[in-house]
Amino acid sequence: MIFMFQWLLLFLVTLTPTIIGAPNKTPPLSPVNPSLRGHTDVFATSSNDFETFFYNQTLDHFNFKPESYATFQQRYIINSKWWGGASKNAPILVYLGAEGPIDDDVTVLGFLTENAPRFKALVVFLEHRFYGESNPFGLKGGSQSIEAMEESVKNKTIRGYFNSAQALADYAELLLHIKNKLHAHNSPIIVIGGSYGGMLASWFRLKYPHIALGALASSAPILYFDDLTPQDGYYSIVTKDFEEASENCYTTIKQSWNEIDRVASMPNGLAILSQKFNLCSPLNNAMELKNYLDSTYASAAQYNAPPRYPTTRICQGIDAASNDTDILDRVFAGVVAYQPNRPCYNVTPGVTQTSIGWQWQVCSEMVIPIGITSNVSMFPSSPYDAKEYDDDCDKMFGVMPRPHWATTYYGGQDIRMILSKFGSNIIFSNGLRDPYSSGGVLEDISENILAVKTTNGSHCLDILKSVETDPEWLVKQRKDEVKIISRWFRKYYQNLRLLKQ
Amino acid sequence: MIFMFQWLLLFLVTLTPTIIGAPNKTPPLSPVNPSLRGHTDVFATSSNDFETFFYNQTLDHFNFKPESYATFQQRYIINSKWWGGASKNAPILVYLGAEGPIDDDVTVLGFLTENAPRFKALVVFLEHRFYGESNPFGLKGGSQSIEAMEESVKNKTIRGYFNSAQALADYAELLLHIKNKLHAHNSPIIVIGGSYGGMLASWFRLKYPHIALGALASSAPILYFDDLTPQDGYYSIVTKDFEEASENCYTTIKQSWNEIDRVASMPNGLAILSQKFNLCSPLNNAMELKNYLDSTYASAAQYNAPPRYPTTRICQGIDAASNDTDILDRVFAGVVAYQPNRPCYNVTPGVTQTSIGWQWQVCSEMVIPIGITSNVSMFPSSPYDAKEYDDDCDKMFGVMPRPHWATTYYGGQDIRMILSKFGSNIIFSNGLRDPYSSGGVLEDISENILAVKTTNGSHCLDILKSVETDPEWLVKQRKDEVKIISRWFRKYYQNLRLLKQ
Repeated sequence: MIFMFQWLLLFLVTLTPTIIGAPNKTPPLSPVNPSLRGHTDVFATSSNDFETFFYNQTLDHFNFKPESYATFQQRYIINSKWWGGASKNAPILVYLGAEGPIDDDVTVLGFLTENAPRFKALVVFLEHRFYGESNPFGLKGGSQSIEAMEESVKNKTIRGYFNSAQALADYAELLLHIKNKLHAHNSPIIVIGGSYGGMLASWFRLKYPHIALGALASSAPILYFDDLTPQDGYYSIVTKDFEEASENCYTTIKQSWNEIDRVASMPNGLAILSQKFNLCSPLNNAMELKNYLDSTYASAAQYNAPPRYPTTRICQGIDAASNDTDILDRVFAGVVAYQPNRPCYNVTPGVTQTSIGWQWQVCSEMVIPIGITSNVSMFPSSPYDAKEYDDDCDKMFGVMPRPHWATTYYGGQDIRMILSKFGSNIIFSNGLRDPYSSGGVLEDISENILAVKTTNGSHCLDILKSVETDPEWLVKQRKDEVKIISRWFRKYYQNLRLLKQ
Repeated sequence: MIFMFQWLLLFLVTLTPTIIGAPNKTPPLSPVNPSLRGHTDVFATSSNDFETFFYNQTLDHFNFKPESYATFQQRYIINSKWWGGASKNAPILVYLGAEGPIDDDVTVLGFLTENAPRFKALVVFLEHRFYGESNPFGLKGGSQSIEAMEESVKNKTIRGYFNSAQALADYAELLLHIKNKLHAHNSPIIVIGGSYGGMLASWFRLKYPHIALGALASSAPILYFDDLTPQDGYYSIVTKDFEEASENCYTTIKQSWNEIDRVASMPNGLAILSQKFNLCSPLNNAMELKNYLDSTYASAAQYNAPPRYPTTRICQGIDAASNDTDILDRVFAGVVAYQPNRPCYNVTPGVTQTSIGWQWQVCSEMVIPIGITSNVSMFPSSPYDAKEYDDDCDKMFGVMPRPHWATTYYGGQDIRMILSKFGSNIIFSNGLRDPYSSGGVLEDISENILAVKTTNGSHCLDILKSVETDPEWLVKQRKDEVKIISRWFRKYYQNLRLLKQ
């Protein structure tokens, strides 16, 4: 199994010492651990219920040059099995695709199909421009292919159109098209998304309230831009997660970084490390190993889902080896407990469509300043360095990021004061063990902009397919969200009746 | 004095029979009658209080091509004479420039400077991209020059960036820059605009609530897009205005169109008409004269301001000549009463920066479908013809308008239902004698999205400089608006104190 931690991507390419707060180190913003993609059970509902369509989407909504009028094929998938129909103004649940092909989401994002029967809702999945089969550059080698994506982000002109504001405008245009086609003018739309897609969902409700009645924004770190959230937010939660799992585990990991450096500096040190960690190919430097471990822990914390709970798993491995005098053997025991039965371990991340596309997005506008400055972290200090971030992006793409654009366009400053008097119908859901929850909205802002959080939850659990083993708190979180959305619908239909009288 | 009814512009150029619902017939969306620009008294406040600045503005906010990163000089003008300062979080009143150079607005838009002392407010005027000295193409021949504008709209690439979404993003970026520069992070901003600028103001509050606390949108026909407002809206109010001024006047005008056609079809008919109307140059066809009269009446109704009341003036002229048996002599008497003491009358509209720029805007996204279908109008039937509109724009610019974009991006559909549960702090002010009020928001939508209207008002009167002769209802309208804005400020400072505690 190949690792695909995309925030490690291009480490070897850029050849600069990797720091946490670098574009190639922004942790994945996907609802599901990218390294586990493709290993999920096929969704229970037969795929025959889903119909795939393509829409001639406008290339540039915000420009009127001749080339802006070009169109591309945007994919969307509809399931009308449970829909109550346009005549009944039955609702529409829309998943806003994020940084990956939409196929995967249809099978993994259970929230929509599981709640469609209750709401008699149409279920729609929209693919994000440039991913999957919605690449304006054209499609090469199928939905998961990396070829078209690679060419897109290399092309200075094409990739310019690859950004969130254009994606939201796509969704606006496409949803109006779908409503027109179905004569469903009065069917209320709820947009749903997770992680980056969760940000898109909340932003969509804020920017296009005339199209979406409400938004469920799961694990959306909309406050992790500019200086709205302390840079330590992410890794301080990773640290806390491990500390809570086991004090001994936390201490072992904290001590391991110096030990890696010590061994690496010995004669033949890299070979010793490569052997100790059973690596598939020998290390080029100690940083490779440290980055690998860093992202293993971060990913375990972010995707710390029941019933497996990767964080606990790692710590159980480390704790079980506590009689072992060698720190690094103990750390490796944690890795093995998390990912057992491997012939060897691969420290270089795999390349996927998502890793390539997201790299461009974080180097253009999705600048999330994550760093480590504090000593309370179990990680070595690695402060966010805006200049280095810029330089890396400049080297990779020849353009500089626009770090203030997200807060200029989407806001975030004084969010409680601003949104308590503006806007409505957004659920910000978070699991507090998710490192990205540090950049999330964790308190109710108003009667209708609500935070639904779980103490033990991790990244995007609420919108994933429910399973037998789901703990009570997760079942309750989903129920709470359904209750809120039901209330939005109830009020909407009341207003609609009043309006039509 | 040269006439500048820009909606007649290019009539001769396109050589197609002009209909009302054509891009070159969209009535002017300026707070002040463009034909009277430059004739206003110099504003009482010394211009020394105003300081002019330029900001390096991003050319394309929604694209990340290398050329999107280009910048241009955007002009803004600040008056800090009355400002209470950043330390007191004193407010900022911002005029959002519209389709013209900002210089004129500083002298004409009295609302800001007149209310600045009361609010201890900073006064800021922002110039709209491509107008005045804020043309990305570069400046040629000064702020009012038409040369740069002409070249801009001819250039297929440059003009692509010339649209409302980019202009709003300019304002967002620039206002954050100004607040930063002044360390005025907590100073609340109220955006103010009239007509097209009024639309921008309301849209800005909706899209950027984190930057503007509220908006005063004067005479903003935000519902005159797509099929939200019946196409007859505009001309039915023009008709009503004249009918109310004088039944005889209305009837005379209504009968005059056939009479013009009858005379025109006579041998030497155009020469007779040219002489009858004392035209500066002979008519090429009857349509020229009819368009001239059409826009004279429309403009009189739209800018029917006290104390002069052009509509009344025209009707007084017509009524005084009622013993005259010739309909056309009576109509001409109306024109003379409105615009006395001219050596001759010019039916071909003058060309201005505004007329050229606005032509592009209505042919790209500001598609306002005005037409005449009903017999109750005093104008000949001239239904809105989307195809002809498109064809005209295609001929002029080689691109087709995007008629649904305004409602896709800004909304407008079911506005009461949508905004009653979303958004706050917008005043939609209208004068019901203003033909564009037919596309305005005329009823309160919620406790904080309010309609302030006057029965006798016309276009944008409330935000213009107040004068001694202002009638009581106009004085009251302004007072009501100030009261509402004061309430917004009061609540804002209350919240700010709570937040900082």
